[in-house]
Formats: sequence, structure tokens, C-alpha cells
Amino acid sequence: MPPVFILVNLKTYLEGTGQRAHRIAAAAREVAEESGAMIGIAPGYMDIHPVSHHYEVPVFAQHVDGVSPGAYTGHITAEAIRQAGATGSLVNHSERRLTLAATEASVVALRQKKLISVLCTNNTPVSAAAAALGPDYVAIEPPELIGSGVSVSKANPDIIRTSVEAVRSVNDRVKVLTGAGIQSGECVRIAVDLGTDGVLLASSVVKADDPGQVLRDLVSKL
Amino acid sequence: MPPVFILVNLKTYLEGTGQRAHRIAAAAREVAEESGAMIGIAPGYMDIHPVSHHYEVPVFAQHVDGVSPGAYTGHITAEAIRQAGATGSLVNHSERRLTLAATEASVVALRQKKLISVLCTNNTPVSAAAAALGPDYVAIEPPELIGSGVSVSKANPDIIRTSVEAVRSVNDRVKVLTGAGIQSGECVRIAVDLGTDGVLLASSVVKADDPGQVLRDLVSKL
Amino acid sequence: MPPVFILVNLKTYLEGTGQRAHRIAAAAREVAEESGAMIGIAPGYMDIHPVSHHYEVPVFAQHVDGVSPGAYTGHITAEAIRQAGATGSLVNHSERRLTLAATEASVVALRQKKLISVLCTNNTPVSAAAAALGPDYVAIEPPELIGSGVSVSKANPDIIRTSVEAVRSVNDRVKVLTGAGIQSGECVRIAVDLGTDGVLLASSVVKADDPGQVLRDLVSKL
Amino acid sequence: MPPVFILVNLKTYLEGTGQRAHRIAAAAREVAEESGAMIGIAPGYMDIHPVSHHYEVPVFAQHVDGVSPGAYTGHITAEAIRQAGATGSLVNHSERRLTLAATEASVVALRQKKLISVLCTNNTPVSAAAAALGPDYVAIEPPELIGSGVSVSKANPDIIRTSVEAVRSVNDRVKVLTGAGIQSGECVRIAVDLGTDGVLLASSVVKADDPGQVLRDLVSKL
Repeated sequence: MPPVFILVNLKTYLEGTGQRAHRIAAAAREVAEESGAMIGIAPGYMDIHPVSHHYEVPVFAQHVDGVSPGAYTGHITAEAIRQAGATGSLVNHSERRLTLAATEASVVALRQKKLISVLCTNNTPVSAAAAALGPDYVAIEPPELIGSGVSVSKANPDIIRTSVEAVRSVNDRVKVLTGAGIQSGECVRIAVDLGTDGVLLASSVVKADDPGQVLRDLVSKL
Repeated sequence: MPPVFILVNLKTYLEGTGQRAHRIAAAAREVAEESGAMIGIAPGYMDIHPVSHHYEVPVFAQHVDGVSPGAYTGHITAEAIRQAGATGSLVNHSERRLTLAATEASVVALRQKKLISVLCTNNTPVSAAAAALGPDYVAIEPPELIGSGVSVSKANPDIIRTSVEAVRSVNDRVKVLTGAGIQSGECVRIAVDLGTDGVLLASSVVKADDPGQVLRDLVSKL
Repeated sequence: MPPVFILVNLKTYLEGTGQRAHRIAAAAREVAEESGAMIGIAPGYMDIHPVSHHYEVPVFAQHVDGVSPGAYTGHITAEAIRQAGATGSLVNHSERRLTLAATEASVVALRQKKLISVLCTNNTPVSAAAAALGPDYVAIEPPELIGSGVSVSKANPDIIRTSVEAVRSVNDRVKVLTGAGIQSGECVRIAVDLGTDGVLLASSVVKADDPGQVLRDLVSKL
Repeated sequence: MPPVFILVNLKTYLEGTGQRAHRIAAAAREVAEESGAMIGIAPGYMDIHPVSHHYEVPVFAQHVDGVSPGAYTGHITAEAIRQAGATGSLVNHSERRLTLAATEASVVALRQKKLISVLCTNNTPVSAAAAALGPDYVAIEPPELIGSGVSVSKANPDIIRTSVEAVRSVNDRVKVLTGAGIQSGECVRIAVDLGTDGVLLASSVVKADDPGQVLRDLVSKL
């Protein structure tokens, strides 16, 4: 059984930008070693190069455009994040939506560069559709849980369960992450028990006084 | 076996706007009666009301937003097109792309109002993803055929064949339209032989001197 | 001095869709005749044709794309709204933003069809920029007032005053509307006293049990 | 008189990504020292940090979002590019358009971080509107010249001349760049003679076998 995957999205939080991204990367590295969990971080684009060169930690972009190198000012190519040292990318995060065609193009572009794709979705039918595109991971972010501070265990966990089933029935090679409502080790445990392969989370780690302590708590029930 | 469906997208062509939309609606009505084919037209939003009130022809919107009635200035609700007399709508046309989440919301909004959804796609994996959303139709528009004047019979028809298979394997209640490369009755015949339930086309009817004649040709090999 | 302009945006409110748009159009017509104010309504696209054919009231689209007739599925051309009977259009409403280049193209497209452009803005520098594009009206919608129920008279009216100055200094042929925070005749009076040529408003009329009564109140202090 | 500004946009060209961006930065540094011209480069986001740390050359982002640090996954904040070492940013490039409101927000965000804003425009009225937002530079990219290989000197230079006048009449502290149609030192000379303060260009430098040689030619007639 592969290790549980914990992916920390640094968004554009000040607490996760520049030198402060390094602090989180260092903590991720340490807790991953201690626990055997796979812990990745998704910093801002500008921090992908320095973080991936200073820490042995899987670094993800927060978004990638499915365009080839060329006349695409301001866009993010899979080639460019790969050269900067990234391991993969989020695609279609709730704060950075893509068209259906562009989503597919991003997943394909990542696959061609042997980068890991984490495709974000908002409900069960969208998760099924996402699975049909063949990403490495589908990360389900139920809108009612995003940034709510409400634990997935207290909210109705059915959306996770039905999404896992929907993804598996379309393409059983696609892994699933619980993408919102993760505050603690208890939540991670529930996410895994619901059949997902890990979690995608943000503020509870990034805004913590001690990110390492939060990460240790997150992996504590595995 | 249900009748073949021929859906004519009037786009924003001058030849399909205002009074000139009526001419095409009248031809569609006439040829549908003669042939038994189902012929729908998708005029501009402003023409949905007058056309649907003057002609017994299925009228489609060219786009619909998956939003509820409310503070959505400039948007198109399923409720509003229904009240205007529409039978259904295109969704995610290549000239009016939506995010994956918005695409799903549009399909759901149409379904809730008992309107027909025709969801446009650009390749095989996207067609599979579209099928997972459960629209009434998936219309495959291979980008290399859009507006090309190249017949689907002369281009590689494999994208249609593999898309039909992909759609069926995900959700076999979803019907499929060939959405580009349709110039003649021969093309419609091939589209049906490739396993699709009809065609989505535009300029060859809209820009014709005699739309009725073109429509008669389109249904001539059925 | 030209009459004060009161433009009622029906958005996609159920209370302003289909037959219910007619009720508001009838009230607008009546109160305009009684008072001498210019009262326009901006219904959904599908209602432009029936409303403009049944009522002698200036009808506006809620959005227009600055594209020529052609292969623009799901778009709104100035030509199409003109043929449907519109007098003008909102452009760049806060719920339907456009790029700077597309905003300019919409204003030009409306001007070429002799339609009135009402270009929405959110603050003083944007209002100055908007004026440089030469629309007929700039409608200032301070974000903190939109849908707030807070009257422009109680909030800080400086944004209206500085926007009027900024617009006039760039192009003094451009008229200005107060685009948010309008609840009553008192608010309209203040809007005019602040130097604007009228108001753009929505829910207080559209959602009223008796839209005519609200419109009468709005013009009561002029 | 300030030095002429030559800004090289590396877009997402392979020839300007990763290590290959360094080669162009080195050439820019060298030719700037020799000639006294100000030569900046705008690499991909991931290359801002390494390039600005290895070369004494003004580094620009290709785009910036006018959002504050926070929950904006996949976005680019002014704070983040500043921390990575950037001197400024392009805004609203023709390949990365923004809404009018977002354009203003980006210009303000850059100003607050004391970063240089280069706001791209497509014609004379849009240039006037851009000037009203108070960026440091307006870069005019006439659509018919972008990537055309046609020199601004051979095409009609009137759009540059009228744009300079329009910008100056709205805000005479805003400097202007000629943003397309620059192939040679002769073109740069013409751009300066037309009243602009420099040029924005891309492929002729980025795709050159010897970028330093092209840069030397560009500054040769100053």
C-alpha cells in the first residue's frame, strides 16, 4: 500500500511566500522522514525553484496551463515547472478554474512531462468527469467545506464516499484526495477510512505558528 | 429508433439574426415535416422568444449559465430560456467555453427545467468526461474540422468513432452528435453510420441562399 | 437640462423575467409619462424583443460583446440587440466584467449602431479610464454599496463626487450615473446633487410588490 | 533625459526558459553596460528568482494579479514577485488580458510595492484609458503588428503617434513603449522618434542564435 499523501497548498498566503515557504518545506521534509507519509508542498510559482533546490520535498505548482512553449505570455507550461524542479501540479483548483478543454490539456501536458496531476473537483459528477481525463489524483473540495473550519467528519461525509465510488467506476487507476475540511489527524484518518489516498489542505498548516507540529498531528493517526 | 437530430446553430451570423432567423425556422419546420427528421435551430438569445412563438420547431439557446435566478446581470438562466420557449441549449460550445464546474452546473440547471442539454466537446477524453455529467447529447467538434469545409468523411473519422465508444462506456444513455465537418447528406449519412444520433452544424445552412434546399440535402440519405 | 435617467436592471431575478418583466415595463412607461423622467429597463436578453415591441420604454441589454456578426456562438452583438428593439446596453457590469480591450470594443460597437452605452465602473481611476473610451454614460458602482441596502447618502459620497470630477476632466461629454446605493427618492435627489445625471438600480424596483409605487417615490424629489 | 528602455519578454518560449533565460539575462546585462540603455527581461515566473539573484538586470514578471496575499491559489501577487527579486511587471499583455477593474487593481498593487508597471494596450482609446490608471509605462501593441515580422516603420506609424498624444493628454507622467513591430536598431530609432520611451519586444531577441548581437543592433542607433 502506498503511503498516504498530504499535499499542503501555500496559496498566496504571506505566511507561505518567500523565506517563509522554506520554513514549511523544512517541516514537511522532517515530518515525512519521521512518519513515512508522503508530504508535498505547493508554493507560489516564484518559490518553486528555490524550494525544490534546497529541500528534498515534492514540490507542486498551484496551476499549469495546457499550452506548449511559445507565445503565451504570463502562462505556466509543464515544461517550465519541470525545469524549475516541480514534481507535479494542482489543476483546476476552486480558486483557479479552467475550462473543461483546458483541464484536459493541462492533465495531458503534465503526463507528457512525467509530472503528477492533482485535479480538483467540487462534487460527485464533476469527480466522475475528472476521472475520465485520467489524472493521477482527483482532489474533491466540497464547496461547503472550503475554508470553513468545519471538519469533514462532522459535515456529511457522503460526498467523499460517492465521489470515490464515481471516480473508481470511471477509472480505477485514479487516486483520490480529500480536499477540504481537514484540520487534524482525526480528519486525515477519516479521509483515509472513506477510501481516499490522502488530503489536500492549506491554512491549518500554512498559518500555524509551528507548521511541523500541525503536520505531526496530521499524520498521527495513520 | 428515434429520428436523426439535426441541430442548426445560427451563431451570430447576420444571415441568422432577426427576421432572417425566421426564414431558417420556417425551412426547418417544413423539411422536418417532409422527412420525419428532428430539426432544431439555435438562434441568438433575442430571437428565441419570437421564433419559438411563431414556428413549431425545437428552439435551442446557444449557451446557458448554471446559475439560479438572482443577481447575475448579463447571464442566461435555464428558467429564462424556458419561459421564452426554448426546448434546450448548447453548453460549452467551442466559441463559448465554460469551466468544468460551470459545465456541470449548466447541465444540471437544464435537467431541472426539463430542457435538453447538448454538451460540446473537442476530443475523446473530453467526450468521456462530458458523458459523466449526464447531458442528453454530447456533440463532438474536432477542432481540425470546425469551419474547415473539410468533410468528416474525408478527414480521419476515428475521433468520432472513439468518442462514441468513450461516451457509451461511461454512460450509455447519453446520445452523441457529430459536431463539425458536415456539409451534405453524405456527411450526415456517415455521421449516423459512425454511430452518432445526428449532427450539429452551422454555416452551410445559415449562409445558404436557400436553407431549405440545404436541409433537404442533409436528410436525403437517411 | 436633459431629464434625469433612471435605469432599472432586471438582472436574472425571477421577478423580472418573462411576463413579470412586462409588469415592470408598464410601470416604467407610466411613471415616465407622469414625471417627465427618462426611465429605462434592462431585462434579460430573451425579453428584449417582446418588451420593446409591447411598451414604449427604452430597453437596454445587460451586456454586449464587441464582436461583429459571425462565428461567435453564445455572444451578444450590437446588431442583434438593435434588431430586437434595444436602445442601448450596459457594458462591464460588476456581475459581467470584460477585459479593457473588450470594453472598448463594446463601446465602439454600440456607437456604430447608434445605441446608448452605459459603462459600469468600480472606483475613481476606473471611471476616469472609462471616460477615455467615450461611452454615453459611466455608471459608478462602489463595491461597498452594491446590494448592501446602504444608501449612498449615508455611506461616504466622496467616491461619486471624485468620479464625476475624474470623468469630466477626461471627457466632459460623458454623462454619469450613480450605480449603487439607491433606495428612495431621497437617494436619487442626492445622486443628482452630487453631479450625476441619474441612477442605475435593480432590486428595490424589481423585487417590489408594486414597482410603480417605488418608481414614483424615486422620481418624487426631482 | 532618461535612458531608452528595452524590455525583452521571454514569453514561454523554450529558448527563454530555465538555463536558457540566464543566457539572455547575461547578454542584457552586458549590452546595457556597454550602451547605457536600460535593458530589462521578463522571464517566466519560475525564473524570476534565479535570474534576479544571478544577474544585475531589471527582471519583470509577465503578469501580476491585483489581489492581496491570501486564498488565491495559482495567482501572482505583487508581494511575491517583489520577494523573488522582480523590479516590475507587465500588466494586461495581449496574451494575458485582464478586466478593466483587475487592470487597475494590478497597477495599484505594483505601485504599493514600489514596482514598475508596464500596461499593455491595443489601440489609441485603450491607451488613453490605460493612462488614466497611472501606470509607469503604457506599451502599445497594435494587433496587426504583433508577431508579424512587419516593422513599425513600414506599417502605418500613426497608431503610435496618436497613442502617445492620447496618453500625454490624459496623464503626462506616464511613459510609453512601442510594443510590437520591433526588429532592429532602425525600428528602435523610429520608436523613439515617434515619441516613445523605449520598446517591448520578444521573439527577435529570444529566438536569436546570439541574443547579445541582436541587443547590440537594437541599441545601435540611439
